[in-house]
Amino acid sequence: MIKVGIIGSTGYAGQELVRLLLGHKYAEIVWYGSRSYIDKKYADVFGNMFKLVDSKCMDDNMEELAQAVDVIFTATPQGLCASLVSDDILNKVKIIDLSADFRIKDVAVYEKWYGITHKSPQFIPEAVYGLCEINREDIKGARLVANPGCYTTCSILSAYPLMKEGLIDPQSLIIDAKSGTSGAGRGAKLDNLYCEVNENIKAYGVGTHRHTPEIEEQLGYAAGEPVVISFTPHLVPMNRGILVTAYASLKKDVSWPQIRSAYEKYYGNEKFIRLLDENVCPQTRWVEGSNYVDINFKVDPRTHRVIIMGAIDNLVKGAAGQAVQNMNLMFGLAEDEGLDLVPLFP
Amino acid sequence: MIKVGIIGSTGYAGQELVRLLLGHKYAEIVWYGSRSYIDKKYADVFGNMFKLVDSKCMDDNMEELAQAVDVIFTATPQGLCASLVSDDILNKVKIIDLSADFRIKDVAVYEKWYGITHKSPQFIPEAVYGLCEINREDIKGARLVANPGCYTTCSILSAYPLMKEGLIDPQSLIIDAKSGTSGAGRGAKLDNLYCEVNENIKAYGVGTHRHTPEIEEQLGYAAGEPVVISFTPHLVPMNRGILVTAYASLKKDVSWPQIRSAYEKYYGNEKFIRLLDENVCPQTRWVEGSNYVDINFKVDPRTHRVIIMGAIDNLVKGAAGQAVQNMNLMFGLAEDEGLDLVPLFP
Amino acid sequence: MIKVGIIGSTGYAGQELVRLLLGHKYAEIVWYGSRSYIDKKYADVFGNMFKLVDSKCMDDNMEELAQAVDVIFTATPQGLCASLVSDDILNKVKIIDLSADFRIKDVAVYEKWYGITHKSPQFIPEAVYGLCEINREDIKGARLVANPGCYTTCSILSAYPLMKEGLIDPQSLIIDAKSGTSGAGRGAKLDNLYCEVNENIKAYGVGTHRHTPEIEEQLGYAAGEPVVISFTPHLVPMNRGILVTAYASLKKDVSWPQIRSAYEKYYGNEKFIRLLDENVCPQTRWVEGSNYVDINFKVDPRTHRVIIMGAIDNLVKGAAGQAVQNMNLMFGLAEDEGLDLVPLFP
Amino acid sequence: MIKVGIIGSTGYAGQELVRLLLGHKYAEIVWYGSRSYIDKKYADVFGNMFKLVDSKCMDDNMEELAQAVDVIFTATPQGLCASLVSDDILNKVKIIDLSADFRIKDVAVYEKWYGITHKSPQFIPEAVYGLCEINREDIKGARLVANPGCYTTCSILSAYPLMKEGLIDPQSLIIDAKSGTSGAGRGAKLDNLYCEVNENIKAYGVGTHRHTPEIEEQLGYAAGEPVVISFTPHLVPMNRGILVTAYASLKKDVSWPQIRSAYEKYYGNEKFIRLLDENVCPQTRWVEGSNYVDINFKVDPRTHRVIIMGAIDNLVKGAAGQAVQNMNLMFGLAEDEGLDLVPLFP
Repeated sequence: MIKVGIIGSTGYAGQELVRLLLGHKYAEIVWYGSRSYIDKKYADVFGNMFKLVDSKCMDDNMEELAQAVDVIFTATPQGLCASLVSDDILNKVKIIDLSADFRIKDVAVYEKWYGITHKSPQFIPEAVYGLCEINREDIKGARLVANPGCYTTCSILSAYPLMKEGLIDPQSLIIDAKSGTSGAGRGAKLDNLYCEVNENIKAYGVGTHRHTPEIEEQLGYAAGEPVVISFTPHLVPMNRGILVTAYASLKKDVSWPQIRSAYEKYYGNEKFIRLLDENVCPQTRWVEGSNYVDINFKVDPRTHRVIIMGAIDNLVKGAAGQAVQNMNLMFGLAEDEGLDLVPLFP
Repeated sequence: MIKVGIIGSTGYAGQELVRLLLGHKYAEIVWYGSRSYIDKKYADVFGNMFKLVDSKCMDDNMEELAQAVDVIFTATPQGLCASLVSDDILNKVKIIDLSADFRIKDVAVYEKWYGITHKSPQFIPEAVYGLCEINREDIKGARLVANPGCYTTCSILSAYPLMKEGLIDPQSLIIDAKSGTSGAGRGAKLDNLYCEVNENIKAYGVGTHRHTPEIEEQLGYAAGEPVVISFTPHLVPMNRGILVTAYASLKKDVSWPQIRSAYEKYYGNEKFIRLLDENVCPQTRWVEGSNYVDINFKVDPRTHRVIIMGAIDNLVKGAAGQAVQNMNLMFGLAEDEGLDLVPLFP
Repeated sequence: MIKVGIIGSTGYAGQELVRLLLGHKYAEIVWYGSRSYIDKKYADVFGNMFKLVDSKCMDDNMEELAQAVDVIFTATPQGLCASLVSDDILNKVKIIDLSADFRIKDVAVYEKWYGITHKSPQFIPEAVYGLCEINREDIKGARLVANPGCYTTCSILSAYPLMKEGLIDPQSLIIDAKSGTSGAGRGAKLDNLYCEVNENIKAYGVGTHRHTPEIEEQLGYAAGEPVVISFTPHLVPMNRGILVTAYASLKKDVSWPQIRSAYEKYYGNEKFIRLLDENVCPQTRWVEGSNYVDINFKVDPRTHRVIIMGAIDNLVKGAAGQAVQNMNLMFGLAEDEGLDLVPLFP
Repeated sequence: MIKVGIIGSTGYAGQELVRLLLGHKYAEIVWYGSRSYIDKKYADVFGNMFKLVDSKCMDDNMEELAQAVDVIFTATPQGLCASLVSDDILNKVKIIDLSADFRIKDVAVYEKWYGITHKSPQFIPEAVYGLCEINREDIKGARLVANPGCYTTCSILSAYPLMKEGLIDPQSLIIDAKSGTSGAGRGAKLDNLYCEVNENIKAYGVGTHRHTPEIEEQLGYAAGEPVVISFTPHLVPMNRGILVTAYASLKKDVSWPQIRSAYEKYYGNEKFIRLLDENVCPQTRWVEGSNYVDINFKVDPRTHRVIIMGAIDNLVKGAAGQAVQNMNLMFGLAEDEGLDLVPLFP
């Protein structure tokens, strides 16, 4: 039985981790970390866990945790994981960091976009970017996995095969992304009040959203050259779900079958990626509560562009589900253990 | 492996059955019945099932089905199950009827409230009312189970111990119920359009809703006398969930501990019923996607009334989950097989 | 031109006052009070007001305000208005208080339910309860009007004629009320976050909600005896709207036409009260954005109860609209000036 | 008093016309046309109109209508207006067509995208495209106005100044649009049911949406060359609102002030267009219920692109409001008569 500690277990991603791990045959949560709710019963914070979780929330003592558990998930604000990690800790326990601290290889890029000084740049080289479908083998041997962002997971997976196979002009990529409100976190902010979000859609962080460099770095590896993209996130009045609509100019004469083949080449055997039938558009309702990524594309002969669409549940494949998938890989379990989740509809 | 056939698999309750049975270790769906979508791939009707269900929808041939499966779920409009059932069929296969056809013992009451002639009144006596927490033993031996209605499940379970223990005036019970929109079915009706339901709440079927006699009959058994109640359903802009708020006059000197004891007496060992801590109100968000019934109550000394509150997911404990629970009982399985569902939040 | 000052102009009710007064021919807002946003442009707080309101938010200096304006609306937390009012102020300016400070005549009841000491009990006797349809004449001459609460307005108006005419047992009244989330205010609280409210319904303040004594006091006047009621509010995932479903035992032999006549007697000439056609249930979507109260009832011969239903927009008839209606009465204007609002649908 | 007839008054756009015209000082609706509800009271179809509209729905007899009214609004499916119009009719009455029949000058383009044969191509040349801010003078003298589509209005107005001033590469324009569900109409279709739309976002009509050629034609006039764009609409779980996010490559060295100047040149004096302050993103909640178009843009130096954002209420500026604006122009009234609508929030 893998002993699990969660730092930041009372955010939306942390709570989703709890939901998933409760159904995991080989993992057991022994530490519900939460600075905000120390000594409060976890089930008093999340009523859904009543009769399912008896534990109380605990402070996040990394040293003590490293003794007590086999793996730590950090579902915390940027900077916290970097400030807690050490070689000593990493020798005792595996870490899966759901924050951005170790996602970006270029520390200068990280510090510029996040506006903070990185506390542990020395661990960046060994941290593995935990996008399982792309970096599966490296994840298996990692001590420290940087779990990708929600927008990022959906964006990269949607565009990856086309970048990798050189079917699109890499500099032409424009990603217009739409997210449910759980992506904004559980902080008590005016902008996230029901009456402010409901009956509204807005773009935010235009040209400045922090997931941009993460997408660029990973897609740059795929393209074999630095990639600069437009990325615009939007807030949608729904709880869960991310939809990515991406636009790119096709290289000369690239056809629908070539694109389809590229997707099948990389994802044909991937359990969690579903290439939809031609002309079927991904919808967030069809992946809710599951670890699936639904992907499809449309070739527009009028503009010589491809329109790529991807949908995920931001809290599952975009956070907790992918974290569990990473854990499974790191501990030699079946990759889908605990993740056989049928999407919940309606 | 229990072979399962579903008649009416493309309604919301039918689809939820599919979701639950896909995670059931000892059951396998071999017949996806749907008059509306014959020969269409099930996953084309419900995109969430893509890569999970390969089957096509089939017509509902009861004879053929009785040969092919061990249990039939009928998630169909009123009257259909009654028109299909026969002694021959019941000798070959168990039936769990999610419609109202066999819920009400008094056929005259059924015919009056539903406005149709009952096609098979001869099977009413043997049909067992499938409220597992109340009729567990009878369900185990049944050939034909009448799966309770969604409002009904929540209403009866919330009030049952108080009726049974004689703590309230049985004729004083008023049930004000609120339901998510999936309870209205998947029919393409103007009243159920997004723009009509969203940003709205309304009562409907005031004094005439068909779940009324079902509640009255079952609570009458508990009270040991015929019970006449007020029942008012409301439509709420959300997908899933039923909340029942019920009001009853307390018998003289009945106190909070007595009421609490009554609930504990009947539900203390029930896995799917959660008696909340004092002063915690049930909320539909805490049971979504699960088979739980969350119950609590408040004694109001000013009015000498008790206010009872109950919350369920109408598609799970109010339909498909309870149906699976019934199946488990009928086939001698663990009652919670396939129903270890952690509520999904947010 | 009536010069208007608003204290608390950046809450939802305050902002609705601004919306309504911008369309009022004889009133002009000269003071946008807001402690939280002093010196910030009002249109930066509420983007809908861009190009419509140029003013900045100001602190709430009652003395200065009393010089500058003809009427002050206080849309503030409980206790503030009571702490600011004085005889000197009331000699200079009319006050319409949207808080509860002057709604309850019995100061002991106020202090018990609100848990605060009343700072100006000496003004309670002269304060007029601003339910226009009931207290029209008294409002016309008032210096200080206590604008009713949102639940209260809907509850009282729905039940008033039946209490007044003695058609129901006054002690049998049970009010089950449902409110949109704007009723919870614009404070940044976790419970009001989008993801907490969406896909959820809950009761709250069961047996203890502060609008209870206000309803009881007013209905007690109508009944001619003290009235004790059950009142249960619920939070519904929508922005605006209150629906009241009330239950009462009919006095012997009271019939549908008698009840209808009672409503027509009191409301037949009321512009803002719409008695719906028989069997039509009030719905919040039909009153959104307007000052209407939609009322109807159903007689249930099985239980000898009447089920009364009422719907309002909590921010209009439940707050700002009624406040403007009061202002119109106090200043001798047409009662509906600025309130010719066609409900917005969908 | 302008006598108004509405054909298709029981769709969402038709009903919004009724709402707006009820507040119009110089217009009076004398004909509520609706094939689906002939002889039914209009207020029985739309409960918000109870006590406001007494009329019954009538069939759409164009001849009779032309005698009875001064202007006809056709809020009907494509093809109907073209099949009803004639020279005789146009000599008697002005027509404002809210369908697409007369929006596209190139009849071949219309027939290709809409898949129907145009019944009255002879009136296309004289029909004026009713985008008031662009074609104001031509509208004043028109007999037949083609009221623009909802996506179209928002898209064209957002990009127009940049096309007109040559600040962007016209062929680089990509429009990612998001619409509330009222845009899908009031037909009882499964895809528009509450449970299908709620908690979901999807793209649809990718590369094939019928508003595409309309946008291209109008922006082509502005650019002075044929323009081919990518246009992707999305369905968002909200009632009203359209948000357009558009991407275009800037011509060399174009700067923020140049772009701002271009917007101010064309829209600086437009009452219904609000250029937001720098860095403020348009949001649909700030325009709900009003005739405003909120526009802003961001220059992204990393990609040399401009991201343009526009927000409207699809039923007001995207349909009924613009139709009334056109009527005002055609009848020599103040352009904003009846359109002084303060956006409703929340």
